[in-house]
Amino acid sequence: MPVWFWIVPIASIAALGAARYFFRQMMRESEGTPTMAKIAAHVRSGALAYLKQQYKVVGIVLVSLTAVFCVLAYVLHMQNPWVPFAFLTGGLFSALAGFIGMRTATYASARTANAARDSLNHGLRVAFRSGAVMGLVVVGLGLLDIAVWFFVLTRFYSVDDSRDVVIVTTTMLTFGMGAAVQSLFARVGGGIFTKAADVGADLVGKIEAGIPEDDARNPATIADNVGDNVGDVAGMGADLYESYVGVILASAALGAAAYFHAGADVQLRAVIAPMVIGALGTLLSIVGVFLVRTNEGATSRQLLGSLARGVNGSAVLIAVASIGVLTLMEVPNLWGTWLALVVGLLTGITIGRAAEYFTSQAYGPTQRIGVSAKTGPATVIIAGLGEGMMSVAIPVLAIVTGTALAYFFGSGYAFTTDTMGAGLYGIGLAAVGMLSTLGITLATDAYGPIADNAGGNAEMSGLPPEVRERTDALDALGNTTAATGKGFAIGSAALTGIALLASYLEEVKIGIEHVLERGRDFVFPDGTLVPTDGANWLQDLSLMDMMTHFQVVLINPKVVLGMFTGAMLAFVFSGLTMKAVGRAAGMMVDEVRRQFREIPGIMAGTAEPDYARCVAISTRAAQREMMLPSILAIAAPVVMGMVFGVPGVLGLLAGGAVTGFSLSMFMANSGGAWDNAKKYIEEGHHGGKGSESHKAAVIGDTVGDPFKDTSGPSLNILVKLMSMEAIVVAGVTVAIHLL
Amino acid sequence: MPVWFWIVPIASIAALGAARYFFRQMMRESEGTPTMAKIAAHVRSGALAYLKQQYKVVGIVLVSLTAVFCVLAYVLHMQNPWVPFAFLTGGLFSALAGFIGMRTATYASARTANAARDSLNHGLRVAFRSGAVMGLVVVGLGLLDIAVWFFVLTRFYSVDDSRDVVIVTTTMLTFGMGAAVQSLFARVGGGIFTKAADVGADLVGKIEAGIPEDDARNPATIADNVGDNVGDVAGMGADLYESYVGVILASAALGAAAYFHAGADVQLRAVIAPMVIGALGTLLSIVGVFLVRTNEGATSRQLLGSLARGVNGSAVLIAVASIGVLTLMEVPNLWGTWLALVVGLLTGITIGRAAEYFTSQAYGPTQRIGVSAKTGPATVIIAGLGEGMMSVAIPVLAIVTGTALAYFFGSGYAFTTDTMGAGLYGIGLAAVGMLSTLGITLATDAYGPIADNAGGNAEMSGLPPEVRERTDALDALGNTTAATGKGFAIGSAALTGIALLASYLEEVKIGIEHVLERGRDFVFPDGTLVPTDGANWLQDLSLMDMMTHFQVVLINPKVVLGMFTGAMLAFVFSGLTMKAVGRAAGMMVDEVRRQFREIPGIMAGTAEPDYARCVAISTRAAQREMMLPSILAIAAPVVMGMVFGVPGVLGLLAGGAVTGFSLSMFMANSGGAWDNAKKYIEEGHHGGKGSESHKAAVIGDTVGDPFKDTSGPSLNILVKLMSMEAIVVAGVTVAIHLL
Repeated sequence: MPVWFWIVPIASIAALGAARYFFRQMMRESEGTPTMAKIAAHVRSGALAYLKQQYKVVGIVLVSLTAVFCVLAYVLHMQNPWVPFAFLTGGLFSALAGFIGMRTATYASARTANAARDSLNHGLRVAFRSGAVMGLVVVGLGLLDIAVWFFVLTRFYSVDDSRDVVIVTTTMLTFGMGAAVQSLFARVGGGIFTKAADVGADLVGKIEAGIPEDDARNPATIADNVGDNVGDVAGMGADLYESYVGVILASAALGAAAYFHAGADVQLRAVIAPMVIGALGTLLSIVGVFLVRTNEGATSRQLLGSLARGVNGSAVLIAVASIGVLTLMEVPNLWGTWLALVVGLLTGITIGRAAEYFTSQAYGPTQRIGVSAKTGPATVIIAGLGEGMMSVAIPVLAIVTGTALAYFFGSGYAFTTDTMGAGLYGIGLAAVGMLSTLGITLATDAYGPIADNAGGNAEMSGLPPEVRERTDALDALGNTTAATGKGFAIGSAALTGIALLASYLEEVKIGIEHVLERGRDFVFPDGTLVPTDGANWLQDLSLMDMMTHFQVVLINPKVVLGMFTGAMLAFVFSGLTMKAVGRAAGMMVDEVRRQFREIPGIMAGTAEPDYARCVAISTRAAQREMMLPSILAIAAPVVMGMVFGVPGVLGLLAGGAVTGFSLSMFMANSGGAWDNAKKYIEEGHHGGKGSESHKAAVIGDTVGDPFKDTSGPSLNILVKLMSMEAIVVAGVTVAIHLL
Repeated sequence: MPVWFWIVPIASIAALGAARYFFRQMMRESEGTPTMAKIAAHVRSGALAYLKQQYKVVGIVLVSLTAVFCVLAYVLHMQNPWVPFAFLTGGLFSALAGFIGMRTATYASARTANAARDSLNHGLRVAFRSGAVMGLVVVGLGLLDIAVWFFVLTRFYSVDDSRDVVIVTTTMLTFGMGAAVQSLFARVGGGIFTKAADVGADLVGKIEAGIPEDDARNPATIADNVGDNVGDVAGMGADLYESYVGVILASAALGAAAYFHAGADVQLRAVIAPMVIGALGTLLSIVGVFLVRTNEGATSRQLLGSLARGVNGSAVLIAVASIGVLTLMEVPNLWGTWLALVVGLLTGITIGRAAEYFTSQAYGPTQRIGVSAKTGPATVIIAGLGEGMMSVAIPVLAIVTGTALAYFFGSGYAFTTDTMGAGLYGIGLAAVGMLSTLGITLATDAYGPIADNAGGNAEMSGLPPEVRERTDALDALGNTTAATGKGFAIGSAALTGIALLASYLEEVKIGIEHVLERGRDFVFPDGTLVPTDGANWLQDLSLMDMMTHFQVVLINPKVVLGMFTGAMLAFVFSGLTMKAVGRAAGMMVDEVRRQFREIPGIMAGTAEPDYARCVAISTRAAQREMMLPSILAIAAPVVMGMVFGVPGVLGLLAGGAVTGFSLSMFMANSGGAWDNAKKYIEEGHHGGKGSESHKAAVIGDTVGDPFKDTSGPSLNILVKLMSMEAIVVAGVTVAIHLL
């Protein structure tokens, strides 16, 4: 094992250790008054109850799929024997990351509110460091999973045999699929829960009963706060765990394929490089967390500056330090590799900035939506949809430019298909670069819902208004950092999606080898025959050769129809989640109305509403509604493989990725812009709070809720899950077509 | 020239003759009271003024592009000498079809209102037969353009030389591009005009001033009625002229390529078959028009039945008669060809039915949006977006199944790439089958805005309420037939888009030949060299060979990044048109408010509002706002060709087509469903007219206006224009990369 590998477990332990340190530091803070502690306990128990319920369902799904993989691996011999276990650990670690992050957040909210009674800086420190627990746990567990599996698998396969290294890296992709399955349920279920509670609470509380947001008299208010934790913390944690692990594994697999003929030593360095960069980024993220602090009386610009200092500081440190590390590691194509990394970092920053431009009230698009509120809700919606659709341009151009440059640098300054393996490895490295600062970007992301919950706690506990003002300042910042975080997640998914097409072909090759090993010939769709003794010839086929033999060209109807289906799935999946939120919110409205009607004294404050019942309704709705979209996502690549084979699957993945990217950017940015257009009006523009313009903007914000927090982010996982799954079941797709 | 060809000009003359007959018949009807005639004259002059202005802009664009093509053809010798003229006639005929249809519609509205004073049946007959003028003019001019150009070109090229036939058919595709450019401006400009006026009139008139729709006191009401004519009649006519001509030309080109080696005689029959089917469909559509009649006191179900009898009667007649004609013509692969045609007819009907299901208040989706209105506008919007996204599933599955079957039948019952040419020809024939009934389906489509305008005229002229009730019954029907018509247009665009990829490659081949003729070698991206004397070798390359040499495989970054860009363009184009409507509606609101303020006596009915000024505002706004999206559409394939070459262009087209199809279905169906959900509530559900539910539904309807009438249908043309244009400039794309 090369010495540089050991930085991976070291960084993992450092991250988990730092997370533990920040957690304990946070736990030493006071929870404030007994009311504050009681409310926090309500939220915590609701969130844990939800997670328990969700993990039961996910557990059944994970175990069932593991059983299927066991049958495929041990009975039908269509798969590698490690697949079932790798799959399971991916799912478990993803669930663990979500659980720890959420548990931390539920402990942190009252403490943040209490710290904000003291000072803004104190509040920021508690909230941000609690968010850092999440960020560091995600990257720490991710690196741990990678390090342990790489170590274990290299006991059974030789790192001196190029073929074995390919098997190790593609096997490891399986735990990417496990993580993707669990994160799909976490994102979809959590997203439905949180927005059903949010929309339901607003529709009855704010609009019908005329009580403010987070008022303790609203029966759905605890459910709303629980939702922030299960959706925006646990869901996002699981999502980014999957993204992080996915990009590192995909790049490792691409490195193994690209440098297959360069000798086992060079190949191994290319495989380990993405892991080492991830580890380096993690260590520097810990440094970045300590850089974030601010003074009392800081403006929101200064607060943002403070967070930016941490994030940008880490990014610059990584860019500089990776030159040294990559040089010492003697990676092949040193400068090309480094430039690809930097391109990834810059692409991520561009997408994040574009998200900020399109969703912050400091800029034109959101302000224009604010202006359109003067002519009522219809024009607010039209403007928000229009601006959101336009906002797709910059991220796509950034991805197109970034990908082209990363390919160019990765392949040693060429843009031809001759050096495709190295070029795709460059794209993978760009994705690693983009997510290398995840430890700290996720901290700035997870701190948002903590601040949001702290505000809820302050409101419900009746703390003085300046506390709420401070938590609001922290929360407003969270909206912008959340949009940036989503940009990183979606951007890295696009890059990984492109790069994973290569891994899919590698896995198909292994599937064909299994066919040959079982004494059967294999015939490619273009008629080329691979005889049973043709394994060596097969191994030497380039990615382009494979594509040509499988006729994955843009005029093959199987490819084109697969693409139409992939694009359609992105829309249908979004439609299902939108409708799920609508239905679940309707049930919440009925329940809140019932409680106001049947429990006298709620409005007078003499009787406590039945909070638990609202939490239970959101929980049940989320469990039920997340099944259909999840099954659709899991079934699609398998069904497409059975109907149209390898060309159809590749079409499905490509169509899903290109449409899903634009669609999810559109939804995330429209939603964010509506939210901030409402805040812009609340700041006193166009009539301010309570005006007709404000009412129109509130409607926009409500429409944006499922857009930005349910459908948009879920779409991102749909795309990644379909890719990961296609890779895992590639052998089956090949085998089925020979039955 | 084979004898069967002559049915094409005969059908063309028959269609134009029947159109003239129906026009004269309509003109003999009375325009009713002087007030009715005056209002009709206002609308007519506004519409003509708009069209004059638009045609000026389009004229400049067409002439400029023609000049560019002249330079390319005569100075740089990168293109066929016929291209500039073919391009220009396509644009002129498309403009003519729009002009005649619109002129008819503006004469018909008062006459329909007057006939509706007499009886429902009389009203239906006048409106429908006036719509038929439009339908028959579109197909008549389309067939005329095809017949004349085919006749002229075959004077200069030999129909006995397979190579010449290919040149003739690909040259003719150029007038498809001319038609596409003019229809893009017509759809985008008309769509912006009509929805700016509609939304603007509603926001001030209905909501602020509290006067009913189409009230003569609303200064924007004439502009609103003008909009129906320039958007829904002229825009749609131009759009469908382009679709109709496009599918026939694309199929002819595919036939020429598919039967290249089958002998000139067989090849020619394959080329003429789509034209003959078009001609047959036109003759039978005329029969169908005479089948539409109904009795006084007919329910809306009976009215729909009456229209359906005409449409379905024509479809059955075409399916039956084409067996005979194809047999007599001795087309190659007789039954496969016929089955592909029938698959196209059935796919069109399935898409139309799905549109009806998702947008009619008789079914679940629209009713569920109605239910969601009880909890306010936000849930109406969420439900409408959700149902619209879900509605994409059936049309895409219909297209996927229909395309796969058409390919299977067309290629002689196989689903391999060996018979790709014939398979793609099958897909082209399916598109021809789908649009073969266009003469009558367009009549049922164009009659909607005529009935709508008749209602407006009745309202403004103060006719008794039963007249308005009758025109409303006719109009409601129009919403459903319009959704069906849009389904046909979008469905045929998808099929044509797939089939046109082959034409693109043919044109690229011709471009390479030009290079060779100029004494230069050509090197494919995969390194294969074509020496200057390699023209024959080049001609024998199959579509798959071309794709392989150009490396148009799904892993080539140029292809994948082209796809991302294509998907992005679909969203940006929609965003631009949405925002354009928002901005233009805002200007209209300001103007209407100004007139109410500055012209006393409008509300009392003692002073006439300045209608012309509102028309002028919509006109100017439409002219200005249509430029940017149109330039974007025209520039994209050229720029992509310069940056990423042939693989990038194919990626762009594919990405645009798959995303554009789903996106435009989503927007068309969401918009239609919102419109009818409002009507459903107006029928007395959930509180009926004037209730809070109704107000919420009106907001949904307003959001749906630009969705279904501006962005959705324009997207469809974007996709087709990019394909057509890529084909026309293919030679340039090839040449540029050798500079």
